Amino acid sequence: MKHPLRQHIEEIITLTDEEFDFVLSHFTPTIKKKHQYIVQEGDYVDKEYWIIKGCLKSYFVDDQGKEHILQFGMENWWITDYESFVKRVKSKTYIDCIEDSELLYITYENREKLTAEMHKMERFWAKKSKMGRIALQNRVLALLKSSTKEQYEMLLEQYPALFQRVPKKMIAAYLGVSRETLSRLDS
Amino acid sequence: MKHPLRQHIEEIITLTDEEFDFVLSHFTPTIKKKHQYIVQEGDYVDKEYWIIKGCLKSYFVDDQGKEHILQFGMENWWITDYESFVKRVKSKTYIDCIEDSELLYITYENREKLTAEMHKMERFWAKKSKMGRIALQNRVLALLKSSTKEQYEMLLEQYPALFQRVPKKMIAAYLGVSRETLSRLDS
Repeated sequence: MKHPLRQHIEEIITLTDEEFDFVLSHFTPTIKKKHQYIVQEGDYVDKEYWIIKGCLKSYFVDDQGKEHILQFGMENWWITDYESFVKRVKSKTYIDCIEDSELLYITYENREKLTAEMHKMERFWAKKSKMGRIALQNRVLALLKSSTKEQYEMLLEQYPALFQRVPKKMIAAYLGVSRETLSRLDS
Repeated sequence: MKHPLRQHIEEIITLTDEEFDFVLSHFTPTIKKKHQYIVQEGDYVDKEYWIIKGCLKSYFVDDQGKEHILQFGMENWWITDYESFVKRVKSKTYIDCIEDSELLYITYENREKLTAEMHKMERFWAKKSKMGRIALQNRVLALLKSSTKEQYEMLLEQYPALFQRVPKKMIAAYLGVSRETLSRLDS
């Protein structure tokens, strides 16, 4: 049985056993309990996380104290505050666990080393980054259209299992609507 | 005097003369007049454009026929419909010229070839893609906050020269506000 991270990477590139061992040696496993944070606003984030098992959310808190969910993460997703991770600035977001979660993280330094040494891994992350950009572009389109229905459908498509795992109030916080509006979309 | 594309690429990586000539051989120059399109909704887009001179906008039209501007592009910016370009699906957006524009484009095939052969160029575009993702993430944050003021300030920061070059009604279409609301922000 292949390591789940290897299966995930091999959706885009192929690796020999030795190459995968080398890749994996740059990661560190960590276990977090439900409600624990991996990123807080103001942190200088130097880790990117890959989710082996569990469910997380990234969000920010506005001036009125309201939570807005930017992204959910489940098995096989990558999650961090990318602005902080890439540009070495303070994080604007929080990321915490909705369920007990098993994660693998790679530090910024290790990721830079790995991508400099292995063109294939640069290629892998370049592809992942493009996909992340496209997902955000579609979110911007839906937000500009102010179409909650479209955002809801995108969310269903991106994370089919989400609705069984996440409290309804979090789905509402992602969509920026009330629980009542969500119930109408849901029916 | 270095080629402007070389200056642009060398903000991230360094190239020898031979390497730059090789990179440039993958691009084709093209000139477009004000109002001409480079992408239309429904196209399968197989080119990414780099702007030598000029100003463009990417936008989509909603069911009510209203234009929403996703992105502006000026000198040194890259522009295309990334979802169509990367995923080989139909474009959801239009891109047209706000001014007469001089462009260099690279086809999908040439970009794949170039990044496969030159790790440095993979690195260059990976970095550009990360920056594009971060810009979109900040746009999502501002849209979720429903803060027109923050979006306006981001726009000023991203494109300081834009306000001298683009009609006010286009700025309003980017922000999704009326001309009157824009005037209040502007003062």
